[in-house]
Amino acid sequence: MKTFNDLAELSNEEISALLELADRLDKHPEPHALQGKVLSLLFLSPSLRTLASFQAAMTRLGGGSFVISPDMSIHGLETRPGIVMDGAAAEHINEAIPVIASYGDAIGIRAFAERKNLEHDMAETEFNAMTSLIDTPWINMESAMNHPCQNLADWKTLDDLDVPANGGKFVLSWAFHPKALPLAVPASTLYTAARRGMDVTVLRPEGFELPEPVMQRARAAAEAAGGSVQESDDRAEAMQGAHVIYAKSWSSTRHYGDRINDQKLRNGLVDWCVDEPWFDNAKEDCRFMHCLPVRRGVVVSDAVLDGPRSVVIHEARNRMLAQMAVLHRMLGAGQ
Amino acid sequence: MKTFNDLAELSNEEISALLELADRLDKHPEPHALQGKVLSLLFLSPSLRTLASFQAAMTRLGGGSFVISPDMSIHGLETRPGIVMDGAAAEHINEAIPVIASYGDAIGIRAFAERKNLEHDMAETEFNAMTSLIDTPWINMESAMNHPCQNLADWKTLDDLDVPANGGKFVLSWAFHPKALPLAVPASTLYTAARRGMDVTVLRPEGFELPEPVMQRARAAAEAAGGSVQESDDRAEAMQGAHVIYAKSWSSTRHYGDRINDQKLRNGLVDWCVDEPWFDNAKEDCRFMHCLPVRRGVVVSDAVLDGPRSVVIHEARNRMLAQMAVLHRMLGAGQ
Amino acid sequence: MKTFNDLAELSNEEISALLELADRLDKHPEPHALQGKVLSLLFLSPSLRTLASFQAAMTRLGGGSFVISPDMSIHGLETRPGIVMDGAAAEHINEAIPVIASYGDAIGIRAFAERKNLEHDMAETEFNAMTSLIDTPWINMESAMNHPCQNLADWKTLDDLDVPANGGKFVLSWAFHPKALPLAVPASTLYTAARRGMDVTVLRPEGFELPEPVMQRARAAAEAAGGSVQESDDRAEAMQGAHVIYAKSWSSTRHYGDRINDQKLRNGLVDWCVDEPWFDNAKEDCRFMHCLPVRRGVVVSDAVLDGPRSVVIHEARNRMLAQMAVLHRMLGAGQ
Repeated sequence: MKTFNDLAELSNEEISALLELADRLDKHPEPHALQGKVLSLLFLSPSLRTLASFQAAMTRLGGGSFVISPDMSIHGLETRPGIVMDGAAAEHINEAIPVIASYGDAIGIRAFAERKNLEHDMAETEFNAMTSLIDTPWINMESAMNHPCQNLADWKTLDDLDVPANGGKFVLSWAFHPKALPLAVPASTLYTAARRGMDVTVLRPEGFELPEPVMQRARAAAEAAGGSVQESDDRAEAMQGAHVIYAKSWSSTRHYGDRINDQKLRNGLVDWCVDEPWFDNAKEDCRFMHCLPVRRGVVVSDAVLDGPRSVVIHEARNRMLAQMAVLHRMLGAGQ
Repeated sequence: MKTFNDLAELSNEEISALLELADRLDKHPEPHALQGKVLSLLFLSPSLRTLASFQAAMTRLGGGSFVISPDMSIHGLETRPGIVMDGAAAEHINEAIPVIASYGDAIGIRAFAERKNLEHDMAETEFNAMTSLIDTPWINMESAMNHPCQNLADWKTLDDLDVPANGGKFVLSWAFHPKALPLAVPASTLYTAARRGMDVTVLRPEGFELPEPVMQRARAAAEAAGGSVQESDDRAEAMQGAHVIYAKSWSSTRHYGDRINDQKLRNGLVDWCVDEPWFDNAKEDCRFMHCLPVRRGVVVSDAVLDGPRSVVIHEARNRMLAQMAVLHRMLGAGQ
Repeated sequence: MKTFNDLAELSNEEISALLELADRLDKHPEPHALQGKVLSLLFLSPSLRTLASFQAAMTRLGGGSFVISPDMSIHGLETRPGIVMDGAAAEHINEAIPVIASYGDAIGIRAFAERKNLEHDMAETEFNAMTSLIDTPWINMESAMNHPCQNLADWKTLDDLDVPANGGKFVLSWAFHPKALPLAVPASTLYTAARRGMDVTVLRPEGFELPEPVMQRARAAAEAAGGSVQESDDRAEAMQGAHVIYAKSWSSTRHYGDRINDQKLRNGLVDWCVDEPWFDNAKEDCRFMHCLPVRRGVVVSDAVLDGPRSVVIHEARNRMLAQMAVLHRMLGAGQ
């Protein structure tokens, strides 16, 4: 396993094997598996779970890691190609990334979408430019459109909870948030649920439709796996019989990169806060999932988040286990 | 050992056993004892010694740790219950703490007192709210009123220096400082010295009396251990025959939470800087202790701090050893 | 090996042995060599490579490290002796350094030159004051005038590339940079190349001559090793037959500590950006070296840095390997 960039790169057998490995490492620790191995962690965007869970994962396997973020380095990192660097940034990622990568057996990189131009972000221009500089194995810790570590953890969570792969109903719901957030989680989560064979509904207000290529990829994955993909702006309809609601805010695609009009549109949508009434016609034990961080009283009510539906802590812990499996596969003896 | 929150939770036998273990681990390292084990470290307040000594302790025992502080996470952590999170903070401690805890075999948390209301701080409202969210073993790395890691290290330091438990005279002295500092160190240090059976004098100017419940707890501990607790604002009287002076600044309890009147009162007290003349009628080899960080020329003179009385570096190193014992007990094979 | 402060402290045999050890550890990892050992890392100046490569080095050898920098500690660290600390800084390095050192088996310290007074900086006044406080082994991670980790890595790089020790021509060239940078890298690199027995030319514009004691030390080293040291401000002459150009910007020594006149002088020197025409009469495979971070389009052109001459990534990776050898020697079983 040389890269972990997108769940689509893995066969169903590979995903199953990774999830079995994650489970095994949870039950039967291997504290010497990666003795002396180093994971380089480069955060060009903020993090809590990813930062903590990757460090913990390496320690549990007997190795270690180090963290670099631009505010720790000399006056930040320049990312623009061909620029004359006479400003604040003293180092270019063209040097920083190969150097940081060269100290590790693998490297994880996080770099969120710029959120100026949708086509640009969907092409993963910056992220591809960065990973093209690396010779060692690497892991996508969230790029403009992908978050495979979250996806693998979420797949495990659905399995852990016995949510049916075929026949399970998964609602990916937009939620209110004061800021225009990236598309990485909703786009890759939609693909993940569809790929798992579930019946997926994207519940979102007008103006927040996911990009057509994202929808098409999900539809193709669903078709291959025996599932389906729908879209709706009607909560009651979408939540009918749902096993899971996965809440997440994201940018308006109608006004992508246009913060003023995005803000105007979302200002009218503060009632998109997941609350108990949303579950009226869902399965009785319908679960609430979220990748975290989540804003209480904004994205979801305290009642739902503190109640028995919420599996967000379980989901977050699965980040560590899923990543341990990936790291073991990449860097372990049987690699 | 599931928690390490307060020295009062430990019997004398348990304290002795921890200190023996600390000594043994110093002389006979066990670099495989905690192989693959993870300590989560959450700092909601600043740190140098605690930050460094816990990381070093885990490495010495073959495990590892990771550090989270709010300035590293996504726009800080919200602590207020029931709030609608439409401001800067993107994550609530109700999620952050269980998640961070779930990545470790144990978690250490530091959160200083708010210093607005004395009853509120003495009730440890915030700290208890946080630790109630945790299923794994946890360590108090300094809360509003407690600092058990410092206390255990100080107990070891007194033992190392052959300061008598019964019959030893311990002066806990207020010192000048430009800011109104928390009560955690003085309150828990007073308890520690009393619990050890020493004759303790709290030396402080008027307006800086320690809260009555703190004094009462110390008196009860002293009585049980064969020691005593006095209060004084007279340096010469207090220092008479002293084996140890433990300096520390703290907030005015008369003006707790009232920064303007606290400042007015302390402005007249700049002569509360421990200096050689303080030791005129103390034991000849009377020691100077301080938990650090210490302001030179403000809390203590350079002459005392750089002279043979000062044991502050020894004391700080004992932090690591005491914590190694606690971690070994919590997470080691014999736990 | 108790300290690693200056390449001059090592005999040729010791340097060779360290470089052989670095090679061996690269080819035959020893992931248990430093199990349970701790390296304390104190950064009083910014870092990327040093920060990352030391952490990685300790993990590869089975140990660990922790990082302290003033922005992480309580309101920064005071460095001035004898000061009354009633300002922002809550801790003095007189306590911080012995404490941090006491948690590690060795400590690395980085503290750049003040760049106010040349004699002061050349005397290493601050750095010597800090290391005098330490009882454990310590490593200079870049002081006012020294950067031995970089020097050892560069020596290895020259060996790796089969650049002749005797008869090899090494050009140390000043380059433009918007800021007045320290002399540590140019001074210690000049010594290193001379010590290796190379024919060294310092290529620099007027006003940027290296201090005479630096030149003298290099001349003596060259003489002992069968090499030579020249100075020039003529690029074509200096680059004639060169095997290596090592670019680096540094402060004007004519206007040392005088930022306004330094700036005036350097403003006219923006053409000191290493570019392909510089290599017209160099060896065909003349290499480009730089310690990084490097400003693209300012210190060196993209064409040179992205072309086959550049060995900067190789050089940076050698930092980790050289440091692993030093750490193994300091802290390993055969120490």
